[in-house]
Amino acid sequence: MIKAAVVGGSGYTGGELARILSRHPGISLEAMTSRQNAGRPIAEVMPFLKGFTDLVFQERLPENGDYDVVFLATPHTASMRIAPPLLDQGMKVIDLSGDYRLKDPRTYEEWYGQQHADLANLPRAAYGLTELFRQEIAGADLVANPGCYPTCTVLSLAPLVKEGLIEGKIIVDAKSGTSGAGQEPTRSTHHPTCAVSISPYKVGVHRHTPEIKGVLEGLTGKDIDVIFTPHLLPIVRGMLTTSYASLADGVTKEDVTAAYRSAYEKERFVHVTGIPAIPDTVGSNLCQVGFEVVGSTVIAMAALDNLVKGAAGQAVQNANIMFKMDEATGLNYPGLGV
Amino acid sequence: MIKAAVVGGSGYTGGELARILSRHPGISLEAMTSRQNAGRPIAEVMPFLKGFTDLVFQERLPENGDYDVVFLATPHTASMRIAPPLLDQGMKVIDLSGDYRLKDPRTYEEWYGQQHADLANLPRAAYGLTELFRQEIAGADLVANPGCYPTCTVLSLAPLVKEGLIEGKIIVDAKSGTSGAGQEPTRSTHHPTCAVSISPYKVGVHRHTPEIKGVLEGLTGKDIDVIFTPHLLPIVRGMLTTSYASLADGVTKEDVTAAYRSAYEKERFVHVTGIPAIPDTVGSNLCQVGFEVVGSTVIAMAALDNLVKGAAGQAVQNANIMFKMDEATGLNYPGLGV
Amino acid sequence: MIKAAVVGGSGYTGGELARILSRHPGISLEAMTSRQNAGRPIAEVMPFLKGFTDLVFQERLPENGDYDVVFLATPHTASMRIAPPLLDQGMKVIDLSGDYRLKDPRTYEEWYGQQHADLANLPRAAYGLTELFRQEIAGADLVANPGCYPTCTVLSLAPLVKEGLIEGKIIVDAKSGTSGAGQEPTRSTHHPTCAVSISPYKVGVHRHTPEIKGVLEGLTGKDIDVIFTPHLLPIVRGMLTTSYASLADGVTKEDVTAAYRSAYEKERFVHVTGIPAIPDTVGSNLCQVGFEVVGSTVIAMAALDNLVKGAAGQAVQNANIMFKMDEATGLNYPGLGV
Amino acid sequence: MIKAAVVGGSGYTGGELARILSRHPGISLEAMTSRQNAGRPIAEVMPFLKGFTDLVFQERLPENGDYDVVFLATPHTASMRIAPPLLDQGMKVIDLSGDYRLKDPRTYEEWYGQQHADLANLPRAAYGLTELFRQEIAGADLVANPGCYPTCTVLSLAPLVKEGLIEGKIIVDAKSGTSGAGQEPTRSTHHPTCAVSISPYKVGVHRHTPEIKGVLEGLTGKDIDVIFTPHLLPIVRGMLTTSYASLADGVTKEDVTAAYRSAYEKERFVHVTGIPAIPDTVGSNLCQVGFEVVGSTVIAMAALDNLVKGAAGQAVQNANIMFKMDEATGLNYPGLGV
Repeated sequence: MIKAAVVGGSGYTGGELARILSRHPGISLEAMTSRQNAGRPIAEVMPFLKGFTDLVFQERLPENGDYDVVFLATPHTASMRIAPPLLDQGMKVIDLSGDYRLKDPRTYEEWYGQQHADLANLPRAAYGLTELFRQEIAGADLVANPGCYPTCTVLSLAPLVKEGLIEGKIIVDAKSGTSGAGQEPTRSTHHPTCAVSISPYKVGVHRHTPEIKGVLEGLTGKDIDVIFTPHLLPIVRGMLTTSYASLADGVTKEDVTAAYRSAYEKERFVHVTGIPAIPDTVGSNLCQVGFEVVGSTVIAMAALDNLVKGAAGQAVQNANIMFKMDEATGLNYPGLGV
Repeated sequence: MIKAAVVGGSGYTGGELARILSRHPGISLEAMTSRQNAGRPIAEVMPFLKGFTDLVFQERLPENGDYDVVFLATPHTASMRIAPPLLDQGMKVIDLSGDYRLKDPRTYEEWYGQQHADLANLPRAAYGLTELFRQEIAGADLVANPGCYPTCTVLSLAPLVKEGLIEGKIIVDAKSGTSGAGQEPTRSTHHPTCAVSISPYKVGVHRHTPEIKGVLEGLTGKDIDVIFTPHLLPIVRGMLTTSYASLADGVTKEDVTAAYRSAYEKERFVHVTGIPAIPDTVGSNLCQVGFEVVGSTVIAMAALDNLVKGAAGQAVQNANIMFKMDEATGLNYPGLGV
Repeated sequence: MIKAAVVGGSGYTGGELARILSRHPGISLEAMTSRQNAGRPIAEVMPFLKGFTDLVFQERLPENGDYDVVFLATPHTASMRIAPPLLDQGMKVIDLSGDYRLKDPRTYEEWYGQQHADLANLPRAAYGLTELFRQEIAGADLVANPGCYPTCTVLSLAPLVKEGLIEGKIIVDAKSGTSGAGQEPTRSTHHPTCAVSISPYKVGVHRHTPEIKGVLEGLTGKDIDVIFTPHLLPIVRGMLTTSYASLADGVTKEDVTAAYRSAYEKERFVHVTGIPAIPDTVGSNLCQVGFEVVGSTVIAMAALDNLVKGAAGQAVQNANIMFKMDEATGLNYPGLGV
Repeated sequence: MIKAAVVGGSGYTGGELARILSRHPGISLEAMTSRQNAGRPIAEVMPFLKGFTDLVFQERLPENGDYDVVFLATPHTASMRIAPPLLDQGMKVIDLSGDYRLKDPRTYEEWYGQQHADLANLPRAAYGLTELFRQEIAGADLVANPGCYPTCTVLSLAPLVKEGLIEGKIIVDAKSGTSGAGQEPTRSTHHPTCAVSISPYKVGVHRHTPEIKGVLEGLTGKDIDVIFTPHLLPIVRGMLTTSYASLADGVTKEDVTAAYRSAYEKERFVHVTGIPAIPDTVGSNLCQVGFEVVGSTVIAMAALDNLVKGAAGQAVQNANIMFKMDEATGLNYPGLGV
């Protein structure tokens, strides 16, 4: 049994990690930290976990903690300070913040407003978009778990980019449920503000922009111009991305179809469908991908549960790979559908 | 032209007062105060008012302000300190807080946790449930505008209580949209918390309980036991109350029907329907009332827009009466319907 | 491995049965019928099941089908015609319609508008509210799986009724998500009609009324007057009931607390909480129960996922018992929480 | 007083026309037809209109009806058969269907699947996007009232197109509330299907595509490639479009800002804001427009109420112009804001 801990576990991602690990046959959640809830039983703070865990939130992990893997559900800029000592003690680390996702520390500084504090480990971090980087993940001690938007966007675009089927600028129009904004009440997630609306936000300045751009560029070796516009959607769980690109000369719809098929026909957590449906993915690690060709434009769509495939689920999927378990262990159940 | 001011205008009620008064042919909004937004144009804080007002939020009303009526959209315990000097200067005051709604200062202290600070004016405050207390309102200088829940509940129950058709305990199961909780973000109105749920809150301890009880008792002269359970509903505007009471001996469905008809057949803002529909009332001053008799139980239902008939709209309706205008002036438009 | 079939599987309940059984280690779904979808792969009709079942919808079960248990997700009045031959062939039947829930065929006829067509089997049907009737269910060949509203209501009231803590009329104000209305589009579940509203419906005439009344009366042996008002709530999954009753003379809050504790302290699928929260139950077989005492009134609340504990989950829970498996087999996972 | 009639008035657009005209000081609604509701009082079918109209739905307009203007809220392919005799009798016609929006009958046939049946009147139809075509509308007897998506999209893009600030393909990612789908229940607007989702639909084949393309091309005289992807959004009223285009060489953010300012600074129903907010527009004829420049891409956004500025409100705005009234007559009120 792999022993796991979660640092910073009192948010939605921490709760989701606990929810998933509670029924994982190969990984045992041994500790979960939270400054604000230290000393309180997890199941008291998160009543949906009653009966599934007897753990109590700890202020911090013990000095001599003996875990095989630590999930960092901490905010960016915190993770890069927490990870090094854990790695030094020989634990594997899966970081769900943005701290290890951008390969170039200057890009990090530009978008996160701080110098990167762990240049030693940054180069060894594998980018945890499982379907694209299995091999790196399998051998990694440190995994940068992707953002929800990059997971959704890149899964929908990767077959096109890898096969060189598109050229020029990529437009990503993304829509996320409010759970992606975290559990701290804010004006933008105040129900009367957001419940009968859809709001573009951080237009042109969202931190997932360089992440999407970097990953896609890595697939092809060329510069790619990515325009990314997130919208806050009046649902809680779930995300949809609609992306637009121009087909390269001579590329046909058949080429596009073939690219998606070959990319995903063996994948258990990525299904190619017609129009992706958020409800099919809710509560599960599934990403649905769809596409349409309209003239010389390809429209790539994807839907997933931002807390599962977009965060905690993919983190567990990566842990499974890092510890040589079947990739679907503990994740092998369907979405709610309705 | 009646000159009006709003104190404490930066919340939803203040915005709604400004929205309604912006098209009122007989009342002119001359000033609106807000501590947090002082100095900012109202239409900048509330962009839906752009083109409808050039006013700038003021820190406070001028010493020698010359208004015919001041609407207090201030929190309870603040209103009872703001009203007296305004009344002394000869202005009429319509208070939208709970400060002047309870006739007995001991009840106020018990439910609001403070001694009442304006015992001089408390007895002269008319309770502004327009359809029931028109005459008192017409002659009043100070109106206690009712709570949204009491307006909805009492309008649905008054015909039964006044005619002595029911006896014993009254159960009020009430459901309100989230705008009723105000514009300050809180955990309970955080979208991920409330958007796919309905939550009972303040069970047995909500301050509208003694208000409902007091008004109903005033209609009949007898003690009435009221159990009031509010629920937070995942919509923004609108409210529904479902109330249950036992029919008195010998009372028939025809008696009930007749009571509702005679109570409301001449009312412009209360319509007796089958099942009340919140969307029919949204954006308007309408309250829809319905009822069913099941065995010896009568189920009284009502729907309204909590920000209009439940707050700002009724306040304007009362102002119309206080200044001898047609009661529907500036309020004479239908709800959205859909 | 227990072999199961589902008749009438193309609705939400059928999909939920397939979703739950897809990860059940002791029951294997061998066949699912649907007239309208006969010949189509289940995973095509319900894409969330892709990868979890290769079954194809059949027009009907084969004559000589060899199943241990058949779940009837058929409409009422259909089930009582389908069950007898299955029972005759020695299969166990769990009927999710209303056909076998009411013990008295005259009550059935009164509320369902038809004579009961299977008087032979009606008396032997166990009522499948698991926590109350485990023993009967364990020995039954035919289980009448309860309605969603009765499950939620009765679980919240049973401790009070069984212990004789309440007297007089019980008021049940119930709120259900729209999935409870089934997958056929109707005017009342048309999004523009219901999405920003809450609507009482079938006031006084909903078929779950005699079911609730009958079960509660069975617990105490006395007549109980039940007033039941369902409301359509603008969420998809989940239900809340708020019920009101008068405490019997001398009953204290401590008595009430003790009754709930002793009723449910050993239950895995019923948790006594403060205020029940629908999101904690969504996707799971959990029912959260809470209560408040206000004067001489007790307010009993419960929340559950109408498709799981309110339908398919409880059906599987019953199947587990009927086949001597651990009751939580295949159901042992937490709700989504958010 | 201008006398108006509405043909096909039982849908959402008809109700909205009646709602708006009920408080219009210069236009009197004299008749409204509906086949399915013929003989029923409008206020019975649409209870939000109770007290605002005594009209009864008629099967059809009287032969010798004497109206100044007839609004056609009929489906496309019906309008082009209804309009000619009305025009022949000298009435003005405002058609809210798609029948007169496309100038080229071959384009009409291609997208609507029928030959155009009124080639005589098609050329004289003014396209009723008020802010762009005031002069044509003022002189027209027949107005093709624009689709909701084209209104929203074109208002956000027109300043860029007219001033030649953009080049190349335009991507329009549009999101509409469910009321845009009409009042007939369908699978896609079934609450359980759409309420916790956002669904792209009719990708590449929506009939508003040639309408948007045609109007934009008309502004500049050049071919424009428009990719239009509508999404069904889980709100009832309101729409947002997010459009993407490349800036022409040398165009700066200042040029863009200046273009929007000069286009709309005198408009009463188009406000240039930061991020447009649907709630600010709900219930009103307002369209909010915003933009961002990101590198060489301009992102143009707009929000409006699809039933008002996107349909009935703009129709009335056009009628005001056609009858030489102030353009804002009967439309001069703010949106709900919350």
